[in-house]
Amino acid sequence: MDALREITHIDNVKLGPDERSVVIIDQTKLPNATEYLTLETPKELYDAIFELKVRGAPAIGICAGFGMYVLAQTIDTEDYEIFLTKFTEYKDYLNSSRPTAVNLSWALNRMEQVVKAHGSLPVREIIALLGKECRMIQEEDRKMCRAISEYGLSLIKDGDGILTHCNAGPLATSQYGTALGPLFLGKEQGMNFKVFADETRPLLQGARLTSYELQKAGIDVTLICDNMASLVMKNGWVQACFVGCDRVAANGDAANKIGTSGVAILANYYHIPFYVLGPSSTIDLNCQTGADIEIELRSPEEIKRKFYEKPMALEEVKCYNPAFDVTDHSLISGIITEQGIFRAPYTESFKGLKK
Amino acid sequence: MDALREITHIDNVKLGPDERSVVIIDQTKLPNATEYLTLETPKELYDAIFELKVRGAPAIGICAGFGMYVLAQTIDTEDYEIFLTKFTEYKDYLNSSRPTAVNLSWALNRMEQVVKAHGSLPVREIIALLGKECRMIQEEDRKMCRAISEYGLSLIKDGDGILTHCNAGPLATSQYGTALGPLFLGKEQGMNFKVFADETRPLLQGARLTSYELQKAGIDVTLICDNMASLVMKNGWVQACFVGCDRVAANGDAANKIGTSGVAILANYYHIPFYVLGPSSTIDLNCQTGADIEIELRSPEEIKRKFYEKPMALEEVKCYNPAFDVTDHSLISGIITEQGIFRAPYTESFKGLKK
Repeated sequence: MDALREITHIDNVKLGPDERSVVIIDQTKLPNATEYLTLETPKELYDAIFELKVRGAPAIGICAGFGMYVLAQTIDTEDYEIFLTKFTEYKDYLNSSRPTAVNLSWALNRMEQVVKAHGSLPVREIIALLGKECRMIQEEDRKMCRAISEYGLSLIKDGDGILTHCNAGPLATSQYGTALGPLFLGKEQGMNFKVFADETRPLLQGARLTSYELQKAGIDVTLICDNMASLVMKNGWVQACFVGCDRVAANGDAANKIGTSGVAILANYYHIPFYVLGPSSTIDLNCQTGADIEIELRSPEEIKRKFYEKPMALEEVKCYNPAFDVTDHSLISGIITEQGIFRAPYTESFKGLKK
Repeated sequence: MDALREITHIDNVKLGPDERSVVIIDQTKLPNATEYLTLETPKELYDAIFELKVRGAPAIGICAGFGMYVLAQTIDTEDYEIFLTKFTEYKDYLNSSRPTAVNLSWALNRMEQVVKAHGSLPVREIIALLGKECRMIQEEDRKMCRAISEYGLSLIKDGDGILTHCNAGPLATSQYGTALGPLFLGKEQGMNFKVFADETRPLLQGARLTSYELQKAGIDVTLICDNMASLVMKNGWVQACFVGCDRVAANGDAANKIGTSGVAILANYYHIPFYVLGPSSTIDLNCQTGADIEIELRSPEEIKRKFYEKPMALEEVKCYNPAFDVTDHSLISGIITEQGIFRAPYTESFKGLKK
């Protein structure tokens, strides 16, 4: 149980001791090393997000919130307009680091709202309010993960096989996680699941992070390559799929790590329920459908070279490397948020969403 | 065109100059180096097959045929019974190297039949017949690949996008290949295709071999991770899927590289035709359905460690690493052999199969 607590309470994103920096676990070094990085400048924050040193939609949001608080303190002025201009410049810069997940812009907008709503206060008081706001974002995320875990746990039973893709555990959030939350919570309550973790090419979040978190917590986990999910399902080993999300459109289309839509299509074929788990802030009612979600394209090097001892394809071979895909709402059995379980038709059920 | 000819006529498996060895390209070293290996002993032959230094169902069959001829010459006896006993021992040993592909046992049985059918001849004459038989296996494969390529090419048109999984090109066969054959033949005839090659975890045959072969031949190829196939299909970029096969059951269920069944389910979902290409020797009428096909399980190290600079998961994390899966016949639009294109219901259409 200590190991379980250690993993679910991992300090993946926090303020440095003097509140002049953000301290993160460098997720690109796991599982071989647990290294902490101190981020102080806009570029350090941008790079940490762009290079996936901090990743997972909620964790990115938290990091961005802390980051804006840290950067706000470096703006050397008592003039509100100058402060606001510089603050907005930093915000826009961080916001451009990764386009798909809504939590990044959502957290940045929350921080900006604090500045905009308090134009009459002295800058140092605004900065103090920013310090409160970013802590609140993290604290709310803790509570959301807990609520999501409880709702998710109600959908599965002791002994079930659960397949997951990418990583939506403690490292991607604050405590418990979203897609993995029900598994950690169930373990706390003495339940046992058999988890199948897709390795999740090209950046291997499933191998490096999900199997790490589950194994450390004493949860039965089997690592598979992404292309083995079909056979695992055919074998009858999977009773439900749990995945996270980076942005959910108003019609229920859900963007998540590349490969998620394939898992959903397989689950649909094998008649296995497919659930998307995430905070309600991930639901972006400004996006009508998944077609409105921008998909981040990344470097061919991630496919051909990264992690390998030698290149795995000729230098001149071109690659297509989308970081996300969109799962059609028709393939989703339910969207689990801290506000409850939404079911199709999502356009209708999202009307009950408190924003 | 020279580059195209060079690739389609690559010497992947051949007899050594004195016919006392089999010489293969070590496919595990591609694309970074073209190294030739000389195989003389039963263990060298077994290991080359087991470790995928030679791979692709037809190429394994050819290698096994040559291998039995080489080993037969080392049996130092003029006594037929002693010769047969030793020959059978070698044959059973090589046959145990990889269980799923039928071509291995098919080629070994052909060689054994030569021995069994000529018990009245002196051993040295039987050996000479074995030399003819193994060359015939390779020559027949060349003709089969050519015929398969022609039938396959009739199914697609200039400009089409073709998705393929694993490698069923010249390296996996003799000349042209099976699943890739139509693309090379079409290129010879001035046609252009846009090929999407699944990298094919864990051993990356798609990245290391398929993208290598196509790129070298001047065919437009884009390398993707296996989990990107769903998005590539959704984008409308794929007009047909072409895959090879290791064993086809009497009802049309087809075993091929792990992940093939997932591609077929995606193709089905996106209404894209899905074709299986292979020599008719791959159709095993002794297997009623795919459930009768033994699936080879391989080491967790292939998922966690191989090719990487550092391990990608904790030592204690367990893996499930099946090398093949079976695609249900209901997902297959056609099975293309040198005898023509078989369509569902396969149990019926296979009645026309010449064996």
